[in-house]
Amino acid sequence: MRFGLFGSAQARRGSADPAQGFHDYVDYAVEAEALGFASAFLVEHHFTGIGQVSATLGLLAWVAARTTRLRLGTAVIVLPWHNPVLLAEEAATLDVMSGGRLDFGVGKGYRRNEFDGFAIDIAEAEARFSEALGVILKAWTAEERFSHHGRFWRFDDVLVEPAPLQKPHPPLWMAAGSAASIREVAARGANLLLDQFAPAAVIAERIALFRGAVEARGRAFDPAMVAVARNIFVAYDAAEQTAALERLRRQHGHMIALSQHAARPVTSHILGYAGGEGASEAAALYGPPEAVTRGLVGLRDAGAAYVLLNGGGTSRENLRRFARDVMPVL
Amino acid sequence: MRFGLFGSAQARRGSADPAQGFHDYVDYAVEAEALGFASAFLVEHHFTGIGQVSATLGLLAWVAARTTRLRLGTAVIVLPWHNPVLLAEEAATLDVMSGGRLDFGVGKGYRRNEFDGFAIDIAEAEARFSEALGVILKAWTAEERFSHHGRFWRFDDVLVEPAPLQKPHPPLWMAAGSAASIREVAARGANLLLDQFAPAAVIAERIALFRGAVEARGRAFDPAMVAVARNIFVAYDAAEQTAALERLRRQHGHMIALSQHAARPVTSHILGYAGGEGASEAAALYGPPEAVTRGLVGLRDAGAAYVLLNGGGTSRENLRRFARDVMPVL
Repeated sequence: MRFGLFGSAQARRGSADPAQGFHDYVDYAVEAEALGFASAFLVEHHFTGIGQVSATLGLLAWVAARTTRLRLGTAVIVLPWHNPVLLAEEAATLDVMSGGRLDFGVGKGYRRNEFDGFAIDIAEAEARFSEALGVILKAWTAEERFSHHGRFWRFDDVLVEPAPLQKPHPPLWMAAGSAASIREVAARGANLLLDQFAPAAVIAERIALFRGAVEARGRAFDPAMVAVARNIFVAYDAAEQTAALERLRRQHGHMIALSQHAARPVTSHILGYAGGEGASEAAALYGPPEAVTRGLVGLRDAGAAYVLLNGGGTSRENLRRFARDVMPVL
Repeated sequence: MRFGLFGSAQARRGSADPAQGFHDYVDYAVEAEALGFASAFLVEHHFTGIGQVSATLGLLAWVAARTTRLRLGTAVIVLPWHNPVLLAEEAATLDVMSGGRLDFGVGKGYRRNEFDGFAIDIAEAEARFSEALGVILKAWTAEERFSHHGRFWRFDDVLVEPAPLQKPHPPLWMAAGSAASIREVAARGANLLLDQFAPAAVIAERIALFRGAVEARGRAFDPAMVAVARNIFVAYDAAEQTAALERLRRQHGHMIALSQHAARPVTSHILGYAGGEGASEAAALYGPPEAVTRGLVGLRDAGAAYVLLNGGGTSRENLRRFARDVMPVL
């Protein structure tokens, strides 16, 4: 199996060293590369009040500057917030500078407080996503100047520089849970991010559905096209396990509160916290190495070849235990 | 005197190694720090067709990750292009990660092709600049959630994270040439960027005007509040000097073409190429060490204590000659 990281970084306002959380994240990613992890997928969030990373590509540039092989993932950049030309430029700059290591995860957004903050109607999320993605792909691949007159954006006679290093463009990743949204991911030629809450049996169904949709479009399916996020914490005793689960529960409670939106109930996907109370802990692989390994074998049997570890904040000790006790078995 | 860098980086579309120009720029800035330069001010441009840097803060993150002391300047971020909240987040992230090294240079924009590309009416440049700067300063300094309902932007109940490390916020820098614009810089509490074309006598007038305007507002004037850009190339013989001037002429010819806008003639400032043909070369300090030194002494006598070197692309040899042959004299 192949492993990556999925998670956030936090720089709290008003703390004694507000940079510490971000630097911890960079150190965590650097160590992950050394331990054999393949990627780091980083979230984008705004106005959380707990200092979650907002300038995702900016922080990934620091990770990129200190690594050589690690794939640099976004999970996900929320396209409705961004000017698609500026975003295409920024993402291409990271791809170029990093030697073609960008995994461009994109989404429509789901947190109520973010739509409210940007004063964007959540009903426009789909349309904004589609238009922005179209502009970005055009910006990355057009060798001649082009114009775009859309519903939300207008650009005249632009040539977007730099072009990304990866051709025709960095891989796209999208999160999905429902059958319709999984088919959309395949239709867009993107790779699939699966959520951290669904049990192995559901993961198996979703991978099979995605595989069918990909093959129906004449594209060869590769298990590396699906990454499954999972809360993982290697605990050496019951006290550690209990404490880690307690942290997870507190954190997810806060995320659920930020996510709810009366006009658009959050459905299950990698980034949503939709399973309600208890769902996080039910799917989490928190326990001794043998239990974590058993959980991963279950996912492997479900067809998952690529798992993104989330858990324990930026605990490098958790990474080390995972690399020592779990990775070699799989 | 204190010295910094002013310039661009270029990653050309379709070249064999499109990242080379950006990596050269990072190496150039890293060596500048080692040689005793205080800062690197980097431009922002779009749609140039010659691969000028567009994601300025993204590239500065690489410079920041590889340096420890160098100030990281933008010269300038054009506020009318950017969502001010996203920009505040990205700039604060760089400030936080770099240990408080951001010099935030901002401007209204002047290139015709950029306004056209973003489909923004150049007549709105001033109003967009003012509104965006107001939002950014509020975003950086507000400890509580706030809303903004302006002419161009609306945000509701937002708390922008991270906060910058420098308090109350990173220093602002603005380019100006005319008396009115120099007074505006002082009124906004910003530092002043002066252009690479004006002769020493004009620089002296502008610094005196700025000093007066700063002191009239009860703020103490410090010569480090003014940075003068200058084309500088230390040539060891006439052939080198001629070749370097020829490169400068070609480059500036292209910039002049991009800058002209029928509806708003470009006036002289650090970033404009308004002097017309020949102006660049007239003010350039291109020549043997003694001639470069004489030119800088002239600027020092005019009240300039901080000069930003631009010239020779990202020639590290030029930096080394300057550090060895010119810096010690001044």
